[in-house]
Amino acid sequence: MLEKKQNYHECENMLVEGINAVFELIKSQQAVDKIFISCDGKKKRIGEIKEIAKKKGIPFVVCDRRKLDFMSQTKNHQGIIAQTAFREYSSVDDIFELAAKNCEKPLIIICDCIEDPRNLGSIIRSAEAAGAHGVIIPKHRSAGLSSVVAKTSAGAISYMLICKTTNIAETIKDIKARGVWVFGAEANGTTSLYDADFKDSAAIVIGSEGKGISRLVRENCDFIINIPMRGHVNSLNASNAATVLLYEAVRQRIQK
Amino acid sequence: MLEKKQNYHECENMLVEGINAVFELIKSQQAVDKIFISCDGKKKRIGEIKEIAKKKGIPFVVCDRRKLDFMSQTKNHQGIIAQTAFREYSSVDDIFELAAKNCEKPLIIICDCIEDPRNLGSIIRSAEAAGAHGVIIPKHRSAGLSSVVAKTSAGAISYMLICKTTNIAETIKDIKARGVWVFGAEANGTTSLYDADFKDSAAIVIGSEGKGISRLVRENCDFIINIPMRGHVNSLNASNAATVLLYEAVRQRIQK
Repeated sequence: MLEKKQNYHECENMLVEGINAVFELIKSQQAVDKIFISCDGKKKRIGEIKEIAKKKGIPFVVCDRRKLDFMSQTKNHQGIIAQTAFREYSSVDDIFELAAKNCEKPLIIICDCIEDPRNLGSIIRSAEAAGAHGVIIPKHRSAGLSSVVAKTSAGAISYMLICKTTNIAETIKDIKARGVWVFGAEANGTTSLYDADFKDSAAIVIGSEGKGISRLVRENCDFIINIPMRGHVNSLNASNAATVLLYEAVRQRIQK
Repeated sequence: MLEKKQNYHECENMLVEGINAVFELIKSQQAVDKIFISCDGKKKRIGEIKEIAKKKGIPFVVCDRRKLDFMSQTKNHQGIIAQTAFREYSSVDDIFELAAKNCEKPLIIICDCIEDPRNLGSIIRSAEAAGAHGVIIPKHRSAGLSSVVAKTSAGAISYMLICKTTNIAETIKDIKARGVWVFGAEANGTTSLYDADFKDSAAIVIGSEGKGISRLVRENCDFIINIPMRGHVNSLNASNAATVLLYEAVRQRIQK
């Protein structure tokens, strides 16, 4: 398994504010989750930051200056604030390398737009506890590796490989080409959880809290599985669903 | 299963403030979670309220008046605020009656001091989804049925029988005498989750987020089981642990 310090960067302050600070930040190797730019920020340097962000695939949001005023901790943001990630992101290759190094079949969790940081944190905790090799999250419409995620992961964020991709559907195609079976979890899934075979290389897709798995992602799954619902509610909380699926994989892999 | 309206009481306002209002409240049948009394509240009526609360087993907390000022929504609390429950509590008998009515072996979750209302809410949601017959919580050192619990239960609070007991260890003795096997979940449990037999009448005990299961409760469990931890973290979030155990019971009961 990974050393605690490898790939790990703890930020006391998750926000970097002001033109020069953000400019230096995005030129560095440090992971940046998102940049907020005031819609009246016309300075040349801000234009340069946008260009670098585009090249590096860092999302930026143009918003009202009042939003920045509200977010700002320094109260001197100069129209730009960057949100750094609690740790560096890994790549899909890193996840496969870890599984190979441990002589295990890859077990991967794909979070299709989990927006609640507490859910993302506890999914990372469960994935680490279940011995999964990586968690894949999208760049947009997802909680990033904030301090809330770090806290609710109970330290697991320091060990788990977390990969951020621009397009979940494309990433699924990539990992399928590497021999991984992809299981989407949905209330109306056709296969029962207990009939799914997680002993081979497997990725489990968890949909967003409100909307579930997006259409394009669903179409790329090999199987759509359901967790039996024996009462009135029609779904579990996203992190509970992820944990039940992860531990069914653990059970099958222990007992095979 | 229960009708939605049965045993169900939705409170717009979870706080009842002022001497007369609290006096009438605790004389009524409505469920009260806790009463906060200012330490300088010496009025005769407050003494009478304390007496009734004692008789009915409603916990009361004597605290600084500033705490009441902070809690108060009316800003006219007269030194006393009662927290009502989102719905009525049920009894242990109700839980066994429901299982008998459904011709099922009882499946019960016992929360030994879950203090985070979001955890309690999602445990209730998972318990309802897994077809459990009841959730037992202690009167003290536990989240009550607040609006946060109701919201995170995703509506399951309206269906699930929830029983509040003064002493969890005594309640465990009671349900063991009725033929239920009691499984405590702990990191150093001697039996693996997958070797436990949940097909017969079963109660699963989940410990508090920080301290786990208390000593007296642990001594009264029939089995202490562990969830396999295959990474660095040594436990799951309480609601994730409860859900994994509940769904292992579902798997065994479906496949028996």
